[in-house]
Amino acid sequence: MSIVVVGSVALDSVETPAGSVEAALGGSAVYFATAASFFQTVVRLVGVVGDDFDQVHVDFLRDRGVDLTGLERVAGGKTFHWKGHYLQDLNVAQTLATELNVFGDFQPKLPETYRDSDYLFLANIHPTLQLQVLRQMHAPRLKVCDTMNLWIETTRQELLQTIREIDVLILNDGEARQLTGESNLIRAAHAILALGPSRVVVKKGEHGAFTLTQDSFFAAPAYPLEQIVDPTGAGDTFAGGFMGYIVSAQDLSEQSFRKAILYGTVLASFNVQDFSLNRQRHLTYPEIEERFEKLAESMRI
Amino acid sequence: MSIVVVGSVALDSVETPAGSVEAALGGSAVYFATAASFFQTVVRLVGVVGDDFDQVHVDFLRDRGVDLTGLERVAGGKTFHWKGHYLQDLNVAQTLATELNVFGDFQPKLPETYRDSDYLFLANIHPTLQLQVLRQMHAPRLKVCDTMNLWIETTRQELLQTIREIDVLILNDGEARQLTGESNLIRAAHAILALGPSRVVVKKGEHGAFTLTQDSFFAAPAYPLEQIVDPTGAGDTFAGGFMGYIVSAQDLSEQSFRKAILYGTVLASFNVQDFSLNRQRHLTYPEIEERFEKLAESMRI
Repeated sequence: MSIVVVGSVALDSVETPAGSVEAALGGSAVYFATAASFFQTVVRLVGVVGDDFDQVHVDFLRDRGVDLTGLERVAGGKTFHWKGHYLQDLNVAQTLATELNVFGDFQPKLPETYRDSDYLFLANIHPTLQLQVLRQMHAPRLKVCDTMNLWIETTRQELLQTIREIDVLILNDGEARQLTGESNLIRAAHAILALGPSRVVVKKGEHGAFTLTQDSFFAAPAYPLEQIVDPTGAGDTFAGGFMGYIVSAQDLSEQSFRKAILYGTVLASFNVQDFSLNRQRHLTYPEIEERFEKLAESMRI
Repeated sequence: MSIVVVGSVALDSVETPAGSVEAALGGSAVYFATAASFFQTVVRLVGVVGDDFDQVHVDFLRDRGVDLTGLERVAGGKTFHWKGHYLQDLNVAQTLATELNVFGDFQPKLPETYRDSDYLFLANIHPTLQLQVLRQMHAPRLKVCDTMNLWIETTRQELLQTIREIDVLILNDGEARQLTGESNLIRAAHAILALGPSRVVVKKGEHGAFTLTQDSFFAAPAYPLEQIVDPTGAGDTFAGGFMGYIVSAQDLSEQSFRKAILYGTVLASFNVQDFSLNRQRHLTYPEIEERFEKLAESMRI
């Protein structure tokens, strides 16, 4: 089974209380694809990079089995660069600089081999790009979307159009409040269902995540960690674990989505224990299963 | 089975976005005792009121089966009065006035009939009063304590003494951080175990609660509500549901504490749906069981 993901491929400069990295591998599509690649899933990535995108990054994704046919390389261009820091509150990133670079003119063109995929994930990028990719797919069985505060503020109408056409919206608590104007999260989640999706997943950082449909509610805690090194990419990694499980299970039941929330939580918990995707470089599937079991036990009555 | 609770008995003036009440029944011991009274538990209250404490409040507690032998009435005195409001963020109370009144000189004396109780709950009051009550008990099987930011700031040494002598500390996330100086909640909870208690329960408002010991971790979401009318007393009500279940079950196993977290969550969810203890006035045990089942279902994988 395969899933198409479109999103950013980036070089991130990040500072946290635990240290810093310069121009490290990042981007919503990269975090997503890497997390999803731990499941029996073919991940087909759509994105764009410049000349400065090191071959070691390409090799890393290829070694994880990610299909890079849809990764465009712009000669003479520079890769998208995000610079940010986290202060004492690791739940909130402070953006210091966003250089779109090659992302500024990106017009995603899906390789023919991508268009029949059954699953689609629109990672956090401009909603018009998300829609362009969605329109090039033949008939995906499940369309899932993420977004961020920037697009809610600056491209609200385009974002609402994308949201109308997808099945599941994944976003964080602040974004859910901002998108709907509801401070109560349960009410915000219901308001999102009224925008089109049949399911919403709300990520709450250290407070875990919940998923809601018209007739179901499920909540899971975050995996308990005593130290967070770098929260960058945690949300995209959550989405990658979530979708990786769904695609490999080929099961869209409520129970399957509940397990997916746990897998997303587990993948995100590994991600935040090191900078960039460094923890994922030596992560194994048995380690994922071990944390899944521990997390499931911590919810058992 | 019986439990002794010492804490405030108050008249609260509260304003929230949903409305306001003046001099309504409140206080940590009252919220606790009322919640615990829904279980097969004799609740023995220790507290103090003034002449202005209306007989209808006494009747309410008596009708709920609460033992008021330990409720002192000071002739010519005024009942403790708390005045506060909640703005958009219903998770944080803004205190406008705290009039200790008869609480200022309170020296709790436990009736002889109270001293053999197997369970003790030290609700939120001055830690020296908590310790006075604790010392008058013969040999309680389980000693549980709550506190608040005020005592952490102003009577830290006395509070640490109380914490050294109890088994379970219940507090909210902000208080856990403040008490330990740890911003990571899991680390804060472990730091609390190092102060003496064998178990800590951290309440996180809309984000639920978790409990942790040296070798266990359990987390539960808040009961999903689309509207909160008044959060006053939610923490004390949580503690009352939590302890009410423990005392009625007479079971100190991990599983029992897990169920207790859910009962605490359920009782708190009813409390916040109306001002003061108004929802509890017409609450029934089958309604509690119904929400318990729904909450348990929302955590089931």
